[in-house]
Amino acid sequence: MGLFTRDIESMNDLFVHQLQDIYYAEKQLVKALQNMAGKAINKRLKQDFLMHLDETRTHVQRLEEVFRMHGAEIKAVDCPAIDGIIEEAEDVAGEIADDSVLDAALINAAQAAEHYEIARYGSLISWAKQLGRNDCASILQKTLEEERATDKKLTSLAESEVNLRAAS
Amino acid sequence: MGLFTRDIESMNDLFVHQLQDIYYAEKQLVKALQNMAGKAINKRLKQDFLMHLDETRTHVQRLEEVFRMHGAEIKAVDCPAIDGIIEEAEDVAGEIADDSVLDAALINAAQAAEHYEIARYGSLISWAKQLGRNDCASILQKTLEEERATDKKLTSLAESEVNLRAAS
Repeated sequence: MGLFTRDIESMNDLFVHQLQDIYYAEKQLVKALQNMAGKAINKRLKQDFLMHLDETRTHVQRLEEVFRMHGAEIKAVDCPAIDGIIEEAEDVAGEIADDSVLDAALINAAQAAEHYEIARYGSLISWAKQLGRNDCASILQKTLEEERATDKKLTSLAESEVNLRAAS
Repeated sequence: MGLFTRDIESMNDLFVHQLQDIYYAEKQLVKALQNMAGKAINKRLKQDFLMHLDETRTHVQRLEEVFRMHGAEIKAVDCPAIDGIIEEAEDVAGEIADDSVLDAALINAAQAAEHYEIARYGSLISWAKQLGRNDCASILQKTLEEERATDKKLTSLAESEVNLRAAS
């Protein structure tokens, strides 16, 4: 999409543009999750990040499947939102002197990314259905459910274990 | 917080840092919501944005109250995440040639911001309780509930009305 042009003329264009945006985001998150798994001290947190890293690689493949099904070019466009979320995660992590507090901040950062994806996949699924692409919607739905499950798992780990240590 | 220093030494420091981050985000969202309300074509969407703009001004005041209760300086720190979310919203809006499609994109953009806040307030509330600040937690909880309600209202408006027109 070019600057100063108005290339999005239909809901279909918006759907494809947002697919390209989340495709970029998922690929950036593959790198970010590797980094976060490397930093996490709590063993369960490290495992959760590694498990979600595997899921995220599957999310990338699912998006490629949706591009193909929809007859759209597999392409990523810049996503300043996920860049900002990852930049902020790295900034905060770099300022933390205590391992347990770092774990709490990593969970918070990961949940910001999860919620970004929950918002985007929610709209994509709704638009896909509106465009008569229930086949695409059902693939995107699988990913949305995994993002929601990861978010819940991280809340549970934070409240049962990580925050307790961080505050001690 | 300075570059190359590790100023966050405790969960309390992390809590205050994140308060400063969301304080910046809420203030940026006051401006962004004014802008989005100006662009929205659908009347209900415009009203919803204006109503949430009022709520967002209250969220700023509530954060100031939490700062005071907690004995922390009322201060904002840069939040690259919300800057990225807003930048992306403006980029996409600038590329859209159709009014109904623009409304669908505005809802999507607003929901990305809502979800960012849902993630951050969720952690802040959890940390406040861990720090024995149930008084702060209960104020932050009010805002979290309004963010969640706005997100649901936007989904409902998208699915009942806006997406239908955008796809027609």
